[in-house]
Amino acid sequence: MQDWPMNVMRLVDHAEREHGSREIVSAWADGSTTRTNWGEVARKARQMSRALTAMGVGKGDRVATLAMNHERHLIAWYGAIGVGAVLHTLNPRLFPEQLAYIVNHAEDKVMLYDALTTPLVAAMRDKWPTVEKYVCFDPPEGGAPDQGFEDWIGGEGDDFAWVNADERDPIGLCYTSGTTGNPKGVTYEHRGMILHAYAEIQPDCFDLSKTSVALPIVPMFHANAWGLPWAAPLVGCKMVLSADYSAPRMVSLFREEEVTHSAGVPTIWIDMIQHIAKTGEELGPLKRVTIGGSAAPRAMIKWFRDRDVTVGHAWGMTELAPIGTLPGKPDGWDDMSDAEQVDYTARQGRVPFGLELRTVDDEGNELPRDGTSSGNLQVRGAWAIQRYFKADEDAADADGWFDTGDVAAMHPDGSMQITDRSKDVIKSGGEWISSIELENAAVGIDGIAEAACIGIYHPKWDERPLLVCVKRDGCELSGDEVIEGLKGQVAKWWLPDAVEFVDELPHTATGKLSKKTLREQFAEYRFEGVEELAGRD
Amino acid sequence: MQDWPMNVMRLVDHAEREHGSREIVSAWADGSTTRTNWGEVARKARQMSRALTAMGVGKGDRVATLAMNHERHLIAWYGAIGVGAVLHTLNPRLFPEQLAYIVNHAEDKVMLYDALTTPLVAAMRDKWPTVEKYVCFDPPEGGAPDQGFEDWIGGEGDDFAWVNADERDPIGLCYTSGTTGNPKGVTYEHRGMILHAYAEIQPDCFDLSKTSVALPIVPMFHANAWGLPWAAPLVGCKMVLSADYSAPRMVSLFREEEVTHSAGVPTIWIDMIQHIAKTGEELGPLKRVTIGGSAAPRAMIKWFRDRDVTVGHAWGMTELAPIGTLPGKPDGWDDMSDAEQVDYTARQGRVPFGLELRTVDDEGNELPRDGTSSGNLQVRGAWAIQRYFKADEDAADADGWFDTGDVAAMHPDGSMQITDRSKDVIKSGGEWISSIELENAAVGIDGIAEAACIGIYHPKWDERPLLVCVKRDGCELSGDEVIEGLKGQVAKWWLPDAVEFVDELPHTATGKLSKKTLREQFAEYRFEGVEELAGRD
Ligand SMILES: Nc1ncnc2c1ncn2[C@@H]1O[C@H](COP(=O)(O)OP(=O)(O)OP(=O)(O)O)[C@@H](O)[C@H]1O
Ligand SMILES: Nc1ncnc2c1ncn2[C@@H]1O[C@H](COP(=O)(O)OP(=O)(O)OP(=O)(O)O)[C@@H](O)[C@H]1O
Ligand SMILES: [Mg+2]
Ligand SMILES: [Mg+2]
Repeated sequence: MQDWPMNVMRLVDHAEREHGSREIVSAWADGSTTRTNWGEVARKARQMSRALTAMGVGKGDRVATLAMNHERHLIAWYGAIGVGAVLHTLNPRLFPEQLAYIVNHAEDKVMLYDALTTPLVAAMRDKWPTVEKYVCFDPPEGGAPDQGFEDWIGGEGDDFAWVNADERDPIGLCYTSGTTGNPKGVTYEHRGMILHAYAEIQPDCFDLSKTSVALPIVPMFHANAWGLPWAAPLVGCKMVLSADYSAPRMVSLFREEEVTHSAGVPTIWIDMIQHIAKTGEELGPLKRVTIGGSAAPRAMIKWFRDRDVTVGHAWGMTELAPIGTLPGKPDGWDDMSDAEQVDYTARQGRVPFGLELRTVDDEGNELPRDGTSSGNLQVRGAWAIQRYFKADEDAADADGWFDTGDVAAMHPDGSMQITDRSKDVIKSGGEWISSIELENAAVGIDGIAEAACIGIYHPKWDERPLLVCVKRDGCELSGDEVIEGLKGQVAKWWLPDAVEFVDELPHTATGKLSKKTLREQFAEYRFEGVEELAGRD
Repeated sequence: MQDWPMNVMRLVDHAEREHGSREIVSAWADGSTTRTNWGEVARKARQMSRALTAMGVGKGDRVATLAMNHERHLIAWYGAIGVGAVLHTLNPRLFPEQLAYIVNHAEDKVMLYDALTTPLVAAMRDKWPTVEKYVCFDPPEGGAPDQGFEDWIGGEGDDFAWVNADERDPIGLCYTSGTTGNPKGVTYEHRGMILHAYAEIQPDCFDLSKTSVALPIVPMFHANAWGLPWAAPLVGCKMVLSADYSAPRMVSLFREEEVTHSAGVPTIWIDMIQHIAKTGEELGPLKRVTIGGSAAPRAMIKWFRDRDVTVGHAWGMTELAPIGTLPGKPDGWDDMSDAEQVDYTARQGRVPFGLELRTVDDEGNELPRDGTSSGNLQVRGAWAIQRYFKADEDAADADGWFDTGDVAAMHPDGSMQITDRSKDVIKSGGEWISSIELENAAVGIDGIAEAACIGIYHPKWDERPLLVCVKRDGCELSGDEVIEGLKGQVAKWWLPDAVEFVDELPHTATGKLSKKTLREQFAEYRFEGVEELAGRD
């Protein structure tokens, strides 16, 4: 057989050659909609590659984007990787300290940003000494500090030979701010992303084909929009990229662009379900949604099923690029009752070929797949992390097993069910809040002896932080004062939704805070004034 | 990302671990049906690997099979590759001279054969000096010369660690007897077959998922049953393997085993369509058939469409393992009229990601994709041939282009249409007849001056040979006498369906026989007594 180095640039070449006129629609933040196609995306990516080459950016250099989903962001992915650079997608919602750390750690050379993030970029500029060039994705308005993207690449010719790459060369960099300590960079490679793309188009996963119209409602800076910008050119489907995730916009895009496939976190779908409950709008030809990032609630699953939309529930993480499980259907699906089908879907799917999953107890012994034994979920395989960017040690053990920080049970039918989380984080609307950082900030407040932060179920955000504090003897302090004390120390959207005071916090035998016991104690806790929403149990 | 060498043994490991109880049904030649599952297939493959290791068969050795489709044949594939051996699938319908040549060229060490081929094996034994061990797949009956398969492996334990392999190591060997000269061996490799499997399960190709029930009506010795024994464990679907392709058996398997996906050459479907026309039988839950190997006739496409079966038409060849195109649907499919959809399907599909197609004129200039320019069809990519087994030269040119011997037009929508064939062969019921060998045999007959053999449309076999002869001056000779003279020189099923005499054959300017002109002259020719059949235009 032939040598055929795997390279993601082959994806855009294939799409240009075989699906050149297939549309890419951008729904911009200003409400406008524009159209281009795979042929143009490839052509402009070559222009951008020339512009990067002209300024000396090449193999291994990091090119950062701070942007929502739109065609120019897509072009920039392929344009950057085309010169051998590593695409670093930044989350604009991160706290400035994190953004400073990440950009410096990555040593980003080029920063491509949306006009909406101009104030953020202005504030960060002198904290980002490695950045040599700023380009604004949007056309510059009066007084704009930087060149616009189209202007930057527009003067270039459109012939360019993608720089040769080894299939194990890095192409992407994504920082995960989930766990304790500094954010950690996850690198993606040509080979792994090609295999990931092949795996995720399969009928049991996203089920993508040339006639699909895919609208990812997950940002391109979140684990590469779940890989969809790699998967779409593989099959040549139409893509709808939206910089705006508001429910009215989404629902009208579904209809106007005849979206057949969509994907997003539960929070997104809750908004949409509520919007539709109010307006009675139609979903158009939508036939498949994939829900992941947090557990898909049963009522949400039912809501889509009632509308003849196939709903797939998947689990993944940045360290897996991100597909960890595919939703699929189990053997015997057609003979299952409605309730059994919903039960199955409410679990987190099964492992695709390319990865392996297992659960182990705290001593590392593999647990049986009996549907009841819960343990630490581990994963290894073709697109699993080996080592964080610039780290001195592998993130995977000698056998390749990476500990996900999730706690799960494996069922006899091969499906996996997340039952808890061992990593100390809270996932709000698909994004991480570090409980440990909140706790550290809290104990810095006068009058607080000890603090513990846990995620509490929230009908819209899935989880929001609750801060449980022990007061210092004799101190008087209100919850509002605690919140006040946290302001400025953490991002605004990290601020706890409530503060509760207790006489003592539970500890383990070895004296560590027992989050597990605390979570049990507060299992029934609900934030005040928060109503149950449509699409939730 | 992690190291993850691609290896087809991972497929059966995955199927055992994740889909262990999913059934493999065998419909045997004697009319019986048995069941096993992916777990058992993996377990017995390990037993076979131990049996091979015990007799010293290992890395790079060739293990041949001479068998129809059944579970033991499937086990043997993985059992052989598990020790690093190369699986050589032999076509039992080949002429003894070809079988002698092929086995000696491949230097097969082990021969696994179906009881039905016992007489053939008996006749070949002393022509196959390299074969050290014969095993009969079926349980031995009284006086059987060789050990039975279950007996051979049954004594072995079932723990075995697959022998380490490089992803570019060969795993399969398939001879193509199509073109002139000796049969040529095509080798398959771990890496290419994994990519091929990922590509072919996609919605636009076979559309396979865990809940699928796949019945390949294409032999495992024909380009690996179109790759289905690699694709099925990837998704964990149920497989139905039948050693018998008779229409009544197929149709009852469709219903009894609830087959959802099937694939085969047009000749197979013609039989089935006729059978159903006679009996009025139901097809069961069948939802997708893939037709390839020869052009799918429009009436056949319509027949399936009328029964709500999605029909995909693909093109491929042994040199492509064999998927060359995927059927898919074009952009705008839903807005096409019924006739337009049938027109599109009657073409040969479009290229999947992983391969590239182009057409060139005789000087090697690439032709436009205008739907009318016909030229030599060339292909290159991840699972395309580089060099025939033991050949001194590459089969692909310096840029990787392999000339398929097919003549095609590329359409603006990316679809490919086979318009002619430049290689001098006739394809009868999915198998090759070499026109050149027939011509050489014919001119050896007294009284024949010159002979040319071309394929003529046949409603059942797609093509059958017509021999056009020029008599030597003054000689008298009948068609029957010519056929009589060919007997013994070529396989019985190669004998021309008719012999026609002409005064002179057309030649090119350089004096070569012009098959193109001859085919034009006989374009309307039909064999006598052959009626149009159901499922044909
Ligand atoms: N279906 C799910 N059910 C429950 N938890 C999930 C699910 N999917 C992901 N998670 C949680 O999210 C973690 C991964 O988050 P991470 O931010 O790395 O992934 P991501 O792909 O970026 O997702 P997102 O786009 O939602 O941010 C998992 O370890 C798990 O805790
Ligand atoms: N859909 C098709 N339409 C027309 N011709 C086809 C089609 N598919 C294959 N062919 C012909 O068959 C040739 C490949 O035959 P080959 O025997 O190598 O393939 P194969 O995969 O073994 O197929 P089969 O199982 O039918 O023998 C192609 O070069 C072409 O001439
Ligand atoms: Mg995330
Ligand atoms: Mg063949």
